[in-house]
Amino acid sequence: MEKAFKNLLKSKLAYLTNHKLLLAVSGGVDSVVLTYLCHAAKLDFSIAHCNFHLREGACDEDETFVKNLAEKLNVDFYVEQFNTNKYAEEQGVSTQMAARDLRYNWFNELRFRNQFEYILTAHHANDDLETFFINLIRGTGLEGLSGIKEVNNAIVRPLLGFSRSRIEVYAEANNIEWREDYTNAETKYIRNKIRHHLVPMLEEMNPKFLESFLKTQSHLRENEALVEDYLSLLYPKIISKSAYGYNLDINYLKKIPNTPAVLYQLLKTFDFTEWDDVYNLLNAQPGKVLFSKTHRLVKDREYLILTERNQIEDKVYKITKNDEFAMLPMGTFSFNKVEEIVEKNKNCIYVNPDKLNYPLTVRKWQNGDYFYPFGMKGKKKISDYFKDKKLSLPEKENTWLLCSGNEIVWVINMRADRRFAITSPRQEIVKITCNP
Amino acid sequence: MEKAFKNLLKSKLAYLTNHKLLLAVSGGVDSVVLTYLCHAAKLDFSIAHCNFHLREGACDEDETFVKNLAEKLNVDFYVEQFNTNKYAEEQGVSTQMAARDLRYNWFNELRFRNQFEYILTAHHANDDLETFFINLIRGTGLEGLSGIKEVNNAIVRPLLGFSRSRIEVYAEANNIEWREDYTNAETKYIRNKIRHHLVPMLEEMNPKFLESFLKTQSHLRENEALVEDYLSLLYPKIISKSAYGYNLDINYLKKIPNTPAVLYQLLKTFDFTEWDDVYNLLNAQPGKVLFSKTHRLVKDREYLILTERNQIEDKVYKITKNDEFAMLPMGTFSFNKVEEIVEKNKNCIYVNPDKLNYPLTVRKWQNGDYFYPFGMKGKKKISDYFKDKKLSLPEKENTWLLCSGNEIVWVINMRADRRFAITSPRQEIVKITCNP
Repeated sequence: MEKAFKNLLKSKLAYLTNHKLLLAVSGGVDSVVLTYLCHAAKLDFSIAHCNFHLREGACDEDETFVKNLAEKLNVDFYVEQFNTNKYAEEQGVSTQMAARDLRYNWFNELRFRNQFEYILTAHHANDDLETFFINLIRGTGLEGLSGIKEVNNAIVRPLLGFSRSRIEVYAEANNIEWREDYTNAETKYIRNKIRHHLVPMLEEMNPKFLESFLKTQSHLRENEALVEDYLSLLYPKIISKSAYGYNLDINYLKKIPNTPAVLYQLLKTFDFTEWDDVYNLLNAQPGKVLFSKTHRLVKDREYLILTERNQIEDKVYKITKNDEFAMLPMGTFSFNKVEEIVEKNKNCIYVNPDKLNYPLTVRKWQNGDYFYPFGMKGKKKISDYFKDKKLSLPEKENTWLLCSGNEIVWVINMRADRRFAITSPRQEIVKITCNP
Repeated sequence: MEKAFKNLLKSKLAYLTNHKLLLAVSGGVDSVVLTYLCHAAKLDFSIAHCNFHLREGACDEDETFVKNLAEKLNVDFYVEQFNTNKYAEEQGVSTQMAARDLRYNWFNELRFRNQFEYILTAHHANDDLETFFINLIRGTGLEGLSGIKEVNNAIVRPLLGFSRSRIEVYAEANNIEWREDYTNAETKYIRNKIRHHLVPMLEEMNPKFLESFLKTQSHLRENEALVEDYLSLLYPKIISKSAYGYNLDINYLKKIPNTPAVLYQLLKTFDFTEWDDVYNLLNAQPGKVLFSKTHRLVKDREYLILTERNQIEDKVYKITKNDEFAMLPMGTFSFNKVEEIVEKNKNCIYVNPDKLNYPLTVRKWQNGDYFYPFGMKGKKKISDYFKDKKLSLPEKENTWLLCSGNEIVWVINMRADRRFAITSPRQEIVKITCNP
């Protein structure tokens, strides 16, 4: 049986021959067995070990063990020290998440720096099974039950089809030494409970449970793939890129079946949680807004507009009297004295320099702002002006104002204020241009 | 809490007011509670009870209990006796499957006979949870994990969102009597193990496990619905109806992503089991065939042809000398003496009656059959003739031969045999017509 296991693995590893590999080795039985199998298969690999400093002493002993293994097999050894608890605290994530982030970030760094083609990890079928139950117990979706893929981008998990016990039997039969696996404290209780109580109970009811489970997961992955295929068909029909983010076509969304499920799939990576509210947004008043931790969804007339939250800035830029040019995020300004008004377009205004109060400022619109629109009578609230122009919320937010003191000179690239306009032909004229 | 439960249920049942309902009542706590709630909500319902005769005496006591309940509430009572074990044996299914079949067949019969609009059953969240684990333990797909729908066609399960314990608390608080639930012997062990050991363990790890689980299942059902939507898009592009069954477009199947998953979804209801073989059929030699218990899949040039297995018949029909007409499954035959050959088409031949050896027979093609095709030299195997015409296997199988003794007179509606042809103008002529 151990020979069969080795041969199976050998054929699985065959396609990795002549590729430069990075092997993630914790020192546990799984990764040590994988190391020996890669060595036996004469693969070109280096070893990477993360020291998460989560257990007094034991972590350092793990590190030494893996270092000695690398020396024994005469392969390159990379090691990195992490302050996992500090990172977890800073990022506000669990220790487990922190360790995963740190681990994969470092692996990727190593990969690019040293041109490794694949990263090999020793995940096996029981890991997948335990993750299935952890997710199920917490509540999850299809993606939480369908398991990880054996090959996903540059990460390869050759042991994924094999059980922990099969790997341990092989290790013992071949006198392979390993360090007892360390599961971090947070998930230790729940993972151990699954491993030692739940799974044995399921295996009592079906001795071939793990085998059935692998088939079940492969069915689930197939379904997941079909959902992906369907969304790839829908995506270009629903979503278009706009200047400020993405537009989702409301009419199309209403036309298709299972709209809430489609909305969930399209937006699930943007941290929304109140999915009923997201769905109800389709029929809400234009202007209604929903926030996630990172994103914002605005109901406009024909679209739901998705933008990043951090795109909304409230900076104020200054332009002094000496500036002939100013390169600002919303465009490049130029200030020129001209003899007469020759060309009129959205990108320029002509003003009376005597009225300007330097330094000028460029800022976003605020509630309560008003101006005296050129070509109209009286004063007007900026918000009403936006409403007349039927601007969407992101369009409003991305409109800048050129101000002189507290007075608005120009709703930039839209409309001048008549208080600064040229009223007599003998006046000095300054042409202000903003090219977005 | 009990009041809240009743109110929740009341709002759930509201839409059933003024509909004629059939309530499936076993006598267990779930169905008895549902009965009282329907009564309190003043719904128009009758009670149906199945006596499966699976336990000595106890089944009859259940029946009496439910009958008394119906009398007490003054509603119509239907009961049916089943020989479940006998049915299970005859159909080669488990007792559980047998009971389910018998139950739903009878309910549907009652529904149509008495114009019930909905059938109500008392399935609750724990039933669904237990079924999830039974399927998971055995190995399943998304459909085995996503649970049953609260409303599915005419069947409504108003208790599906509630736990067993919540229903029991309500029953006790309201002094409702019930009969202890009976789970049939086969699944008793596994269902009890799940109920009394597995689920409590999961609830220990997450006290709100059942609640999370209901959300998980609703996510799974959403994914299932999206897969269905995707398949509805693909269906008309891949599948077309043919005279003998369904044609699946091989080129289209090869063009889309995740072909094996799509093939599985399209064909899963036709009892195939060797899915790798089904997938490999796409690239097999034309003529290659796969069988399921009920269906057959044939690789033709451009299509996989799906037909029912029982469509292939090997009957032999006789036509006597006196028959002027014969209505047979493949068409209507007529035999007429004519003066001359006037009209030639696929549906008729002209033969020399002296050569015919009555009774004529009409039968399917057999291996080794040959004939002397009219208009060609020499004799030809029927199989070679079919090959030249590039007939698919179902087309071959649905071709009939008109025979005189052992000799083929006509490959019906295709080609006459020249041995029976008119060779001299003074001969008697019989026109044989077959209108399919």
